[in-house]
Amino acid sequence: MMRHRERVLVAISGGKDSLALWDILLDLGYKADGVYLGLGIGDYSDASRIHAEKYAGQRGATLHVVDIPADHGFAIPDAARATKRVPCSACGLSKRHLLNRAALDGGYDVLATGHNLDDEAAVLFGNVMQWHVGYLARQRPVLPQTEGFARRVKPLIRLGERESAAYCVVKGIDYIVDECPMAAGNRHLRYKETLNEIEDRSPGAKAAFYFQFLEHMLPVLDGVAAAERDLVGTCTRCGAPSSADVCAFCKLVERVTA
Amino acid sequence: MMRHRERVLVAISGGKDSLALWDILLDLGYKADGVYLGLGIGDYSDASRIHAEKYAGQRGATLHVVDIPADHGFAIPDAARATKRVPCSACGLSKRHLLNRAALDGGYDVLATGHNLDDEAAVLFGNVMQWHVGYLARQRPVLPQTEGFARRVKPLIRLGERESAAYCVVKGIDYIVDECPMAAGNRHLRYKETLNEIEDRSPGAKAAFYFQFLEHMLPVLDGVAAAERDLVGTCTRCGAPSSADVCAFCKLVERVTA
Repeated sequence: MMRHRERVLVAISGGKDSLALWDILLDLGYKADGVYLGLGIGDYSDASRIHAEKYAGQRGATLHVVDIPADHGFAIPDAARATKRVPCSACGLSKRHLLNRAALDGGYDVLATGHNLDDEAAVLFGNVMQWHVGYLARQRPVLPQTEGFARRVKPLIRLGERESAAYCVVKGIDYIVDECPMAAGNRHLRYKETLNEIEDRSPGAKAAFYFQFLEHMLPVLDGVAAAERDLVGTCTRCGAPSSADVCAFCKLVERVTA
Repeated sequence: MMRHRERVLVAISGGKDSLALWDILLDLGYKADGVYLGLGIGDYSDASRIHAEKYAGQRGATLHVVDIPADHGFAIPDAARATKRVPCSACGLSKRHLLNRAALDGGYDVLATGHNLDDEAAVLFGNVMQWHVGYLARQRPVLPQTEGFARRVKPLIRLGERESAAYCVVKGIDYIVDECPMAAGNRHLRYKETLNEIEDRSPGAKAAFYFQFLEHMLPVLDGVAAAERDLVGTCTRCGAPSSADVCAFCKLVERVTA
Protein backbone atom coordinates (compact mmCIF):
# COMPACT_ATOMS: atom_id res chain seq x y z
CA MET A 1 0.00 0.00 0.00
CA MET A 2 2.77 2.45 0.82
CA ARG A 3 6.49 2.61 1.45
CA HIS A 4 8.09 3.94 4.59
CA ARG A 5 9.71 6.90 2.89
CA GLU A 6 6.54 8.01 1.10
CA ARG A 7 4.54 11.02 2.24
CA VAL A 8 1.09 9.92 3.35
CA LEU A 9 -2.01 12.09 3.73
CA VAL A 10 -4.60 10.56 6.06
CA ALA A 11 -8.23 11.68 5.70
CA ILE A 12 -9.31 12.52 9.25
CA SER A 13 -12.97 12.79 10.26
CA GLY A 14 -12.34 12.78 14.00
CA GLY A 15 -13.96 9.34 14.25
CA LYS A 16 -12.49 6.09 15.49
CA ASP A 17 -11.33 4.68 12.15
CA SER A 18 -9.43 7.68 10.83
CA LEU A 19 -7.76 8.47 14.17
CA ALA A 20 -6.84 4.81 14.68
CA LEU A 21 -5.32 4.71 11.20
CA TRP A 22 -3.34 7.92 11.75
CA ASP A 23 -2.13 6.64 15.13
CA ILE A 24 -1.00 3.33 13.68
CA LEU A 25 0.85 5.00 10.81
CA LEU A 26 2.58 7.48 13.12
CA ASP A 27 3.54 4.71 15.53
CA LEU A 28 4.98 2.74 12.62
CA GLY A 29 7.10 5.75 11.68
CA TYR A 30 5.33 6.83 8.52
CA LYS A 31 5.50 10.46 7.46
CA ALA A 32 1.74 10.84 7.82
CA ASP A 33 -0.04 14.19 7.88
CA GLY A 34 -3.78 14.53 8.33
CA VAL A 35 -6.43 16.44 6.39
CA TYR A 36 -9.75 17.37 7.96
CA LEU A 37 -12.68 18.30 5.75
CA GLY A 38 -15.19 20.73 7.27
CA LEU A 39 -18.62 19.77 5.99
CA GLY A 40 -20.65 22.49 7.69
CA ILE A 41 -22.92 20.05 9.50
CA GLY A 42 -23.55 22.25 12.57
CA ASP A 43 -22.43 21.01 15.97
CA TYR A 44 -21.34 17.68 14.55
CA SER A 45 -18.72 19.31 12.32
CA ASP A 46 -17.54 21.56 15.15
CA ALA A 47 -17.13 18.62 17.52
CA SER A 48 -15.44 16.35 15.02
CA ARG A 49 -12.94 19.09 14.10
CA ILE A 50 -12.11 19.57 17.78
CA HIS A 51 -11.36 15.84 18.10
CA ALA A 52 -9.17 15.89 15.01
CA GLU A 53 -7.23 18.97 16.13
CA LYS A 54 -6.86 17.68 19.66
CA TYR A 55 -5.31 14.43 18.45
CA ALA A 56 -3.00 16.28 16.05
CA GLY A 57 -1.92 18.60 18.86
CA GLN A 58 -1.18 15.70 21.22
CA ARG A 59 0.95 13.96 18.59
CA GLY A 60 2.55 17.15 17.28
CA ALA A 61 1.32 16.09 13.86
CA THR A 62 0.34 18.29 10.94
CA LEU A 63 -3.39 18.57 10.25
CA HIS A 64 -4.53 20.44 7.15
CA VAL A 65 -8.06 21.81 7.24
CA VAL A 66 -10.23 22.24 4.17
CA ASP A 67 -13.46 23.94 5.13
CA ILE A 68 -16.15 23.56 2.50
CA PRO A 69 -18.34 26.46 3.75
CA ALA A 70 -15.37 28.85 3.99
CA ASP A 71 -13.62 27.69 0.81
CA HIS A 72 -16.54 26.84 -1.46
CA GLY A 73 -19.46 28.80 -0.06
CA PHE A 74 -21.86 26.02 0.91
CA ALA A 75 -22.49 23.44 3.60
CA ILE A 76 -23.48 19.82 2.98
CA PRO A 77 -27.09 20.43 4.13
CA ASP A 78 -27.34 23.22 1.50
CA ALA A 79 -26.09 20.82 -1.15
CA ALA A 80 -28.70 18.24 -0.17
CA ARG A 81 -31.47 20.82 -0.48
CA ALA A 82 -30.18 22.15 -3.81
CA THR A 83 -29.72 18.74 -5.38
CA LYS A 84 -32.87 17.28 -3.78
CA ARG A 85 -30.84 14.16 -3.03
CA VAL A 86 -29.71 12.58 0.21
CA PRO A 87 -26.91 14.60 1.86
CA CYS A 88 -24.56 11.59 1.75
CA SER A 89 -24.51 11.85 -2.04
CA ALA A 90 -23.15 15.43 -2.14
CA CYS A 91 -20.93 14.68 0.85
CA GLY A 92 -19.34 11.63 -0.76
CA LEU A 93 -18.57 13.34 -4.03
CA SER A 94 -17.19 16.42 -2.24
CA LYS A 95 -14.95 14.23 -0.09
CA ARG A 96 -13.60 12.29 -3.05
CA HIS A 97 -12.87 15.47 -4.97
CA LEU A 98 -11.41 17.60 -2.18
CA LEU A 99 -9.36 14.88 -0.50
CA ASN A 100 -7.79 13.95 -3.81
CA ARG A 101 -7.06 17.61 -4.53
CA ALA A 102 -5.52 18.04 -1.07
CA ALA A 103 -3.24 15.06 -1.66
CA LEU A 104 -2.13 16.32 -5.09
CA ASP A 105 -1.71 19.96 -4.04
CA GLY A 106 0.28 18.92 -0.98
CA GLY A 107 2.58 16.71 -3.04
CA TYR A 108 1.67 13.56 -1.11
CA ASP A 109 2.41 10.14 -2.58
CA VAL A 110 -0.64 8.47 -1.19
CA LEU A 111 -4.05 9.29 0.30
CA ALA A 112 -5.08 6.90 3.08
CA THR A 113 -8.63 6.55 4.41
CA GLY A 114 -9.90 4.69 7.47
CA HIS A 115 -12.56 2.57 5.75
CA ASN A 116 -13.01 -0.64 7.71
CA LEU A 117 -14.46 -4.02 6.76
CA ASP A 118 -17.97 -2.99 7.81
CA ASP A 119 -17.79 0.11 5.60
CA GLU A 120 -16.41 -1.69 2.60
CA ALA A 121 -18.81 -4.61 2.87
CA ALA A 122 -21.76 -2.21 3.10
CA VAL A 123 -20.56 -0.21 0.08
CA LEU A 124 -20.09 -3.45 -1.81
CA PHE A 125 -23.57 -4.57 -0.79
CA GLY A 126 -25.06 -1.32 -2.12
CA ASN A 127 -23.15 -1.57 -5.38
CA VAL A 128 -24.30 -5.16 -5.79
CA MET A 129 -27.95 -4.47 -4.99
CA GLN A 130 -28.00 -2.10 -7.95
CA TRP A 131 -25.22 -3.71 -9.98
CA HIS A 132 -23.20 -0.55 -10.45
CA VAL A 133 -20.60 -2.49 -12.40
CA GLY A 134 -18.32 0.52 -12.86
CA TYR A 135 -18.30 1.18 -9.11
CA LEU A 136 -17.68 -2.51 -8.41
CA ALA A 137 -14.67 -2.46 -10.72
CA ARG A 138 -13.19 0.44 -8.74
CA GLN A 139 -13.85 -0.94 -5.25
CA ARG A 140 -10.29 -1.92 -4.44
CA PRO A 141 -8.22 -1.52 -1.26
CA VAL A 142 -5.51 0.09 -3.41
CA LEU A 143 -6.29 2.37 -6.34
CA PRO A 144 -2.99 3.08 -8.08
CA GLN A 145 -1.96 6.58 -8.99
CA THR A 146 -3.34 7.59 -12.37
CA GLU A 147 -3.50 10.87 -14.29
CA GLY A 148 -5.07 13.38 -11.88
CA PHE A 149 -5.50 10.92 -9.02
CA ALA A 150 -3.21 10.32 -6.06
CA ARG A 151 -2.80 6.70 -5.04
CA ARG A 152 -5.61 5.83 -2.61
CA VAL A 153 -5.31 3.11 0.00
CA LYS A 154 -7.55 1.67 2.70
CA PRO A 155 -5.25 0.01 5.23
CA LEU A 156 -7.98 -0.93 7.75
CA ILE A 157 -10.15 -3.11 5.51
CA ARG A 158 -9.36 -6.20 7.59
CA LEU A 159 -10.67 -4.60 10.81
CA GLY A 160 -14.28 -4.55 11.91
CA GLU A 161 -15.58 -1.27 13.29
CA ARG A 162 -15.62 -2.69 16.79
CA GLU A 163 -11.92 -3.40 16.44
CA SER A 164 -10.96 0.16 15.48
CA ALA A 165 -13.14 1.43 18.35
CA ALA A 166 -11.39 -0.97 20.73
CA TYR A 167 -8.01 0.20 19.43
CA CYS A 168 -8.91 3.81 20.25
CA VAL A 169 -10.13 2.87 23.72
CA VAL A 170 -6.96 0.91 24.45
CA LYS A 171 -4.74 3.71 23.13
CA GLY A 172 -6.74 6.43 24.90
CA ILE A 173 -7.64 8.20 21.65
CA ASP A 174 -10.57 10.56 22.18
CA TYR A 175 -12.70 10.20 19.04
CA ILE A 176 -16.13 11.54 18.18
CA VAL A 177 -18.56 8.77 19.06
CA ASP A 178 -21.68 10.24 17.48
CA GLU A 179 -22.59 9.19 13.97
CA CYS A 180 -23.14 11.97 11.47
CA PRO A 181 -26.71 13.23 12.08
CA MET A 182 -27.33 13.48 8.32
CA ALA A 183 -26.56 9.78 7.82
CA ALA A 184 -29.30 8.56 10.17
CA GLY A 185 -31.46 6.01 8.37
CA ASN A 186 -29.50 6.15 5.14
CA ARG A 187 -29.06 3.14 2.89
CA HIS A 188 -25.44 2.58 3.86
CA LEU A 189 -26.39 2.16 7.53
CA ARG A 190 -29.31 -0.11 6.60
CA TYR A 191 -26.98 -2.28 4.55
CA LYS A 192 -24.64 -2.47 7.54
CA GLU A 193 -27.55 -3.70 9.65
CA THR A 194 -28.53 -6.25 7.02
CA LEU A 195 -24.96 -7.55 6.86
CA ASN A 196 -24.80 -7.69 10.65
CA GLU A 197 -27.96 -9.81 10.71
CA ILE A 198 -26.47 -12.16 8.13
CA GLU A 199 -23.22 -12.24 10.12
CA ASP A 200 -25.12 -13.13 13.32
CA ARG A 201 -26.61 -16.18 11.63
CA SER A 202 -23.49 -17.12 9.63
CA PRO A 203 -20.37 -15.90 11.43
CA GLY A 204 -17.69 -15.03 8.89
CA ALA A 205 -20.21 -14.21 6.17
CA LYS A 206 -19.30 -10.52 6.06
CA ALA A 207 -15.58 -11.10 5.62
CA ALA A 208 -16.26 -13.83 3.06
CA PHE A 209 -18.53 -11.48 1.12
CA TYR A 210 -15.88 -8.78 0.90
CA PHE A 211 -12.68 -10.80 0.58
CA GLN A 212 -14.07 -13.30 -1.89
CA PHE A 213 -15.17 -10.33 -3.97
CA LEU A 214 -11.57 -9.11 -3.99
CA GLU A 215 -10.24 -12.55 -4.82
CA HIS A 216 -12.77 -13.92 -7.28
CA MET A 217 -14.77 -11.08 -8.77
CA LEU A 218 -12.39 -8.14 -9.10
CA PRO A 219 -10.07 -9.92 -11.56
CA VAL A 220 -13.08 -10.48 -13.83
CA LEU A 221 -13.77 -6.73 -13.68
CA ASP A 222 -10.30 -5.66 -14.80
CA GLY A 223 -11.57 -4.97 -18.30
CA VAL A 224 -14.40 -2.81 -16.97
CA ALA A 225 -11.97 -0.84 -14.82
CA ALA A 226 -9.65 -0.25 -17.78
CA ALA A 227 -12.54 0.85 -20.00
CA GLU A 228 -13.71 3.28 -17.29
CA ARG A 229 -10.21 4.72 -16.95
CA ASP A 230 -10.10 5.33 -20.69
CA LEU A 231 -13.23 7.48 -20.42
CA VAL A 232 -11.73 9.82 -17.84
CA GLY A 233 -10.80 13.23 -19.21
CA THR A 234 -10.27 16.55 -17.47
CA CYS A 235 -12.78 19.00 -16.01
CA THR A 236 -12.67 22.17 -18.11
CA ARG A 237 -13.18 24.30 -14.98
CA CYS A 238 -10.95 22.86 -12.29
CA GLY A 239 -8.73 20.41 -14.14
CA ALA A 240 -9.79 17.44 -12.00
CA PRO A 241 -10.28 14.04 -13.63
CA SER A 242 -13.82 13.81 -14.99
CA SER A 243 -15.72 11.71 -17.50
CA ALA A 244 -17.83 14.79 -18.36
CA ASP A 245 -16.78 18.27 -19.55
CA VAL A 246 -17.43 19.66 -16.09
CA CYS A 247 -16.76 17.46 -13.09
CA ALA A 248 -19.44 16.51 -10.57
CA PHE A 249 -17.95 18.73 -7.87
CA CYS A 250 -17.90 21.85 -10.05
CA LYS A 251 -21.49 21.12 -11.09
CA LEU A 252 -22.45 20.75 -7.44
CA VAL A 253 -20.82 24.04 -6.47
CA GLU A 254 -22.56 25.81 -9.35
CA ARG A 255 -25.93 24.37 -8.39
CA VAL A 256 -25.66 25.07 -4.67
CA THR A 257 -24.28 28.59 -4.96
CA ALA A 258 -26.49 29.65 -7.89
CA MET B 1 -37.29 -19.01 -24.81
CA MET B 2 -39.17 -21.54 -26.93
CA ARG B 3 -41.06 -21.83 -30.18
CA HIS B 4 -44.64 -22.98 -30.48
CA ARG B 5 -43.79 -26.17 -32.35
CA GLU B 6 -41.08 -27.24 -29.90
CA ARG B 7 -41.62 -30.03 -27.39
CA VAL B 8 -41.39 -28.66 -23.88
CA LEU B 9 -40.80 -30.62 -20.68
CA VAL B 10 -41.97 -28.77 -17.57
CA ALA B 11 -40.43 -29.70 -14.20
CA ILE B 12 -43.43 -30.19 -11.91
CA SER B 13 -43.10 -30.16 -8.12
CA GLY B 14 -46.82 -29.90 -7.41
CA GLY B 15 -46.29 -26.35 -6.09
CA LYS B 16 -47.77 -23.10 -7.31
CA ASP B 17 -44.98 -22.03 -9.65
CA SER B 18 -44.58 -25.22 -11.65
CA LEU B 19 -48.32 -25.83 -11.98
CA ALA B 20 -48.93 -22.20 -12.97
CA LEU B 21 -46.20 -22.49 -15.60
CA TRP B 22 -47.59 -25.74 -17.00
CA ASP B 23 -51.09 -24.25 -17.06
CA ILE B 24 -49.94 -21.13 -18.90
CA LEU B 25 -48.00 -23.13 -21.48
CA LEU B 26 -50.91 -25.51 -22.10
CA ASP B 27 -53.34 -22.59 -22.39
CA LEU B 28 -51.00 -20.96 -24.90
CA GLY B 29 -51.05 -24.14 -26.97
CA TYR B 30 -47.53 -25.39 -26.30
CA LYS B 31 -46.81 -29.11 -26.54
CA ALA B 32 -45.87 -29.25 -22.87
CA ASP B 33 -45.48 -32.47 -20.91
CA GLY B 34 -44.61 -32.57 -17.23
CA VAL B 35 -41.99 -34.47 -15.27
CA TYR B 36 -42.34 -35.09 -11.56
CA LEU B 37 -39.31 -36.04 -9.50
CA GLY B 38 -40.00 -38.21 -6.44
CA LEU B 39 -37.54 -37.16 -3.73
CA GLY B 40 -38.58 -39.61 -1.03
CA ILE B 41 -39.33 -36.90 1.51
CA GLY B 42 -42.10 -38.80 3.33
CA ASP B 43 -45.62 -37.36 3.36
CA TYR B 44 -44.46 -34.22 1.58
CA SER B 45 -43.40 -36.16 -1.50
CA ASP B 46 -46.58 -38.24 -1.45
CA ALA B 47 -48.77 -35.14 -1.24
CA SER B 48 -46.88 -33.19 -3.88
CA ARG B 49 -47.05 -36.11 -6.30
CA ILE B 50 -50.83 -36.32 -5.77
CA HIS B 51 -51.17 -32.64 -6.66
CA ALA B 52 -49.04 -33.06 -9.77
CA GLU B 53 -50.95 -36.14 -10.95
CA LYS B 54 -54.31 -34.58 -10.18
CA TYR B 55 -53.53 -31.54 -12.30
CA ALA B 56 -52.20 -33.70 -15.15
CA GLY B 57 -55.36 -35.83 -15.00
CA GLN B 58 -57.64 -32.80 -15.12
CA ARG B 59 -55.85 -31.41 -18.16
CA GLY B 60 -55.37 -34.77 -19.85
CA ALA B 61 -51.67 -33.93 -19.96
CA THR B 62 -48.72 -36.31 -19.87
CA LEU B 63 -46.79 -36.46 -16.60
CA HIS B 64 -43.60 -38.49 -16.47
CA VAL B 65 -42.55 -39.65 -13.04
CA VAL B 66 -38.92 -40.22 -12.03
CA ASP B 67 -38.79 -41.67 -8.54
CA ILE B 68 -35.36 -41.34 -6.96
CA PRO B 69 -35.93 -44.01 -4.25
CA ALA B 70 -37.35 -46.54 -6.75
CA ASP B 71 -34.92 -45.76 -9.58
CA HIS B 72 -31.73 -44.93 -7.69
CA GLY B 73 -32.13 -46.60 -4.31
CA PHE B 74 -32.02 -43.62 -1.97
CA ALA B 75 -34.17 -40.80 -0.66
CA ILE B 76 -33.03 -37.20 -0.23
CA PRO B 77 -32.87 -37.50 3.58
CA ASP B 78 -30.48 -40.48 3.12
CA ALA B 79 -28.31 -38.38 0.85
CA ALA B 80 -28.16 -35.59 3.41
CA ARG B 81 -27.04 -38.03 6.10
CA ALA B 82 -24.48 -39.72 3.87
CA THR B 83 -22.96 -36.47 2.60
CA LYS B 84 -23.26 -34.71 5.98
CA ARG B 85 -24.50 -31.66 4.11
CA VAL B 86 -27.84 -29.87 4.04
CA PRO B 87 -30.46 -31.91 2.16
CA CYS B 88 -31.02 -29.03 -0.32
CA SER B 89 -27.51 -29.62 -1.64
CA ALA B 90 -28.09 -33.27 -2.67
CA CYS B 91 -31.63 -32.40 -3.77
CA GLY B 92 -30.51 -29.59 -6.06
CA LEU B 93 -27.81 -31.60 -7.76
CA SER B 94 -30.15 -34.58 -8.19
CA LYS B 95 -32.81 -32.36 -9.74
CA ARG B 96 -30.39 -30.74 -12.16
CA HIS B 97 -29.04 -34.11 -13.26
CA LEU B 98 -32.29 -36.06 -13.48
CA LEU B 99 -34.43 -33.34 -15.04
CA ASN B 100 -31.82 -32.78 -17.73
CA ARG B 101 -31.62 -36.51 -18.36
CA ALA B 102 -35.42 -36.75 -18.57
CA ALA B 103 -35.48 -33.96 -21.14
CA LEU B 104 -32.75 -35.55 -23.26
CA ASP B 105 -34.09 -39.10 -23.00
CA GLY B 106 -37.59 -37.93 -23.89
CA GLY B 107 -36.35 -36.02 -26.93
CA TYR B 108 -37.63 -32.68 -25.66
CA ASP B 109 -36.33 -29.45 -27.14
CA VAL B 110 -36.45 -27.51 -23.94
CA LEU B 111 -36.71 -28.00 -20.18
CA ALA B 112 -38.80 -25.33 -18.44
CA THR B 113 -38.79 -24.69 -14.70
CA GLY B 114 -41.11 -22.51 -12.62
CA HIS B 115 -38.44 -20.39 -10.87
CA ASN B 116 -39.93 -17.00 -10.05
CA LEU B 117 -38.35 -13.65 -9.28
CA ASP B 118 -38.16 -14.41 -5.55
CA ASP B 119 -36.33 -17.68 -6.24
CA GLU B 120 -33.90 -16.21 -8.71
CA ALA B 121 -33.15 -13.15 -6.61
CA ALA B 122 -32.47 -15.36 -3.57
CA VAL B 123 -30.19 -17.66 -5.57
CA LEU B 124 -28.39 -14.61 -6.92
CA PHE B 125 -28.06 -13.23 -3.40
CA GLY B 126 -26.50 -16.48 -2.21
CA ASN B 127 -24.09 -16.60 -5.14
CA VAL B 128 -23.09 -12.99 -4.48
CA MET B 129 -22.62 -13.43 -0.74
CA GLN B 130 -19.97 -16.02 -1.53
CA TRP B 131 -18.95 -14.72 -4.95
CA HIS B 132 -19.40 -18.03 -6.75
CA VAL B 133 -18.35 -16.39 -10.01
CA GLY B 134 -18.90 -19.55 -12.06
CA TYR B 135 -22.45 -19.92 -10.74
CA LEU B 136 -23.11 -16.23 -11.37
CA ALA B 137 -22.01 -16.63 -14.98
CA ARG B 138 -24.54 -19.43 -15.45
CA GLN B 139 -27.49 -17.75 -13.75
CA ARG B 140 -29.44 -16.89 -16.88
CA PRO B 141 -33.15 -17.15 -17.69
CA VAL B 142 -32.18 -19.08 -20.84
CA LEU B 143 -29.30 -21.55 -20.93
CA PRO B 144 -28.87 -22.58 -24.55
CA GLN B 145 -28.58 -26.20 -25.56
CA THR B 146 -25.00 -27.40 -25.35
CA GLU B 147 -23.35 -30.81 -25.58
CA GLY B 148 -25.20 -33.02 -23.09
CA PHE B 149 -27.58 -30.31 -21.89
CA ALA B 150 -31.11 -29.61 -23.07
CA ARG B 151 -31.99 -25.92 -23.39
CA ARG B 152 -33.21 -24.72 -19.99
CA VAL B 153 -35.62 -21.81 -19.60
CA LYS B 154 -37.29 -20.03 -16.69
CA PRO B 155 -40.36 -18.30 -18.11
CA LEU B 156 -41.72 -17.00 -14.77
CA ILE B 157 -38.74 -14.91 -13.69
CA ARG B 158 -40.77 -11.69 -13.95
CA LEU B 159 -43.42 -12.96 -11.50
CA GLY B 160 -43.20 -12.69 -7.73
CA GLU B 161 -44.21 -15.78 -5.76
CA ARG B 162 -47.39 -14.08 -4.63
CA GLU B 163 -48.33 -13.61 -8.27
CA SER B 164 -47.96 -17.28 -9.21
CA ALA B 165 -49.94 -18.18 -6.08
CA ALA B 166 -52.65 -15.70 -7.09
CA TYR B 167 -52.69 -17.16 -10.60
CA CYS B 168 -53.34 -20.64 -9.18
CA VAL B 169 -56.10 -19.34 -6.93
CA VAL B 170 -57.80 -17.51 -9.79
CA LYS B 171 -57.49 -20.52 -12.09
CA GLY B 172 -58.61 -22.97 -9.39
CA ILE B 173 -55.35 -24.94 -9.53
CA ASP B 174 -54.95 -27.09 -6.43
CA TYR B 175 -51.25 -26.88 -5.55
CA ILE B 176 -49.32 -28.09 -2.52
CA VAL B 177 -49.13 -25.12 -0.18
CA ASP B 178 -46.64 -26.55 2.31
CA GLU B 179 -42.98 -25.74 1.87
CA CYS B 180 -40.61 -28.70 1.75
CA PRO B 181 -40.00 -29.70 5.40
CA MET B 182 -36.30 -30.23 4.69
CA ALA B 183 -35.88 -26.62 3.51
CA ALA B 184 -37.06 -25.06 6.78
CA GLY B 185 -34.47 -22.57 7.97
CA ASN B 186 -32.14 -23.07 5.04
CA ARG B 187 -30.04 -20.29 3.61
CA HIS B 188 -32.17 -19.85 0.52
CA LEU B 189 -35.25 -19.08 2.63
CA ARG B 190 -33.24 -16.74 4.87
CA TYR B 191 -32.00 -14.88 1.80
CA LYS B 192 -35.60 -14.58 0.63
CA GLU B 193 -36.49 -13.02 3.99
CA THR B 194 -33.54 -10.64 3.80
CA LEU B 195 -34.56 -9.55 0.30
CA ASN B 196 -38.16 -9.12 1.44
CA GLU B 197 -37.00 -6.83 4.25
CA ILE B 198 -34.97 -4.78 1.78
CA GLU B 199 -37.95 -4.71 -0.58
CA ASP B 200 -40.24 -3.47 2.22
CA ARG B 201 -37.96 -0.49 2.78
CA SER B 202 -37.14 0.11 -0.89
CA PRO B 203 -39.97 -1.14 -3.10
CA GLY B 204 -38.59 -2.35 -6.41
CA ALA B 205 -35.21 -3.25 -4.92
CA LYS B 206 -35.64 -6.98 -5.53
CA ALA B 207 -36.50 -6.65 -9.20
CA ALA B 208 -33.69 -4.09 -9.66
CA PHE B 209 -31.23 -6.47 -8.01
CA TYR B 210 -32.09 -9.32 -10.37
CA PHE B 211 -32.80 -7.53 -13.62
CA GLN B 212 -29.85 -5.16 -13.38
CA PHE B 213 -27.71 -8.23 -12.82
CA LEU B 214 -29.01 -9.64 -16.09
CA GLU B 215 -28.49 -6.36 -17.89
CA HIS B 216 -25.23 -5.05 -16.49
CA MET B 217 -23.30 -7.90 -14.90
CA LEU B 218 -24.00 -10.97 -17.02
CA PRO B 219 -22.40 -9.52 -20.17
CA VAL B 220 -19.20 -8.99 -18.17
CA LEU B 221 -19.31 -12.67 -17.19
CA ASP B 222 -19.52 -14.02 -20.75
CA GLY B 223 -15.86 -14.92 -20.70
CA VAL B 224 -16.23 -16.80 -17.42
CA ALA B 225 -19.21 -18.74 -18.80
CA ALA B 226 -17.28 -19.69 -21.93
CA ALA B 227 -14.26 -20.81 -19.91
CA GLU B 228 -16.53 -22.93 -17.69
CA ARG B 229 -18.15 -24.55 -20.73
CA ASP B 230 -14.72 -25.47 -22.08
CA LEU B 231 -14.02 -27.40 -18.88
CA VAL B 232 -17.08 -29.62 -19.22
CA GLY B 233 -16.34 -33.17 -20.27
CA THR B 234 -18.33 -36.36 -19.90
CA CYS B 235 -18.97 -38.55 -16.87
CA THR B 236 -17.24 -41.88 -17.43
CA ARG B 237 -20.10 -43.71 -15.70
CA CYS B 238 -23.33 -42.17 -16.98
CA GLY B 239 -22.25 -40.00 -19.90
CA ALA B 240 -23.68 -36.81 -18.40
CA PRO B 241 -21.78 -33.55 -18.76
CA SER B 242 -19.26 -33.23 -15.96
CA SER B 243 -16.13 -31.26 -15.21
CA ALA B 244 -14.76 -34.27 -13.28
CA ASP B 245 -14.23 -37.88 -14.41
CA VAL B 246 -17.30 -38.97 -12.49
CA CYS B 247 -20.23 -36.55 -12.26
CA ALA B 248 -21.58 -35.25 -8.96
CA PHE B 249 -24.76 -37.32 -9.23
CA CYS B 250 -22.92 -40.62 -9.79
CA LYS B 251 -20.65 -39.77 -6.86
CA LEU B 252 -23.69 -39.05 -4.73
CA VAL B 253 -25.37 -42.34 -5.66
CA GLU B 254 -22.17 -44.24 -4.89
CA ARG B 255 -21.80 -42.54 -1.52
CA VAL B 256 -25.42 -42.95 -0.42
CA THR B 257 -25.85 -46.56 -1.53
CA ALA B 258 -22.39 -47.73 -0.39
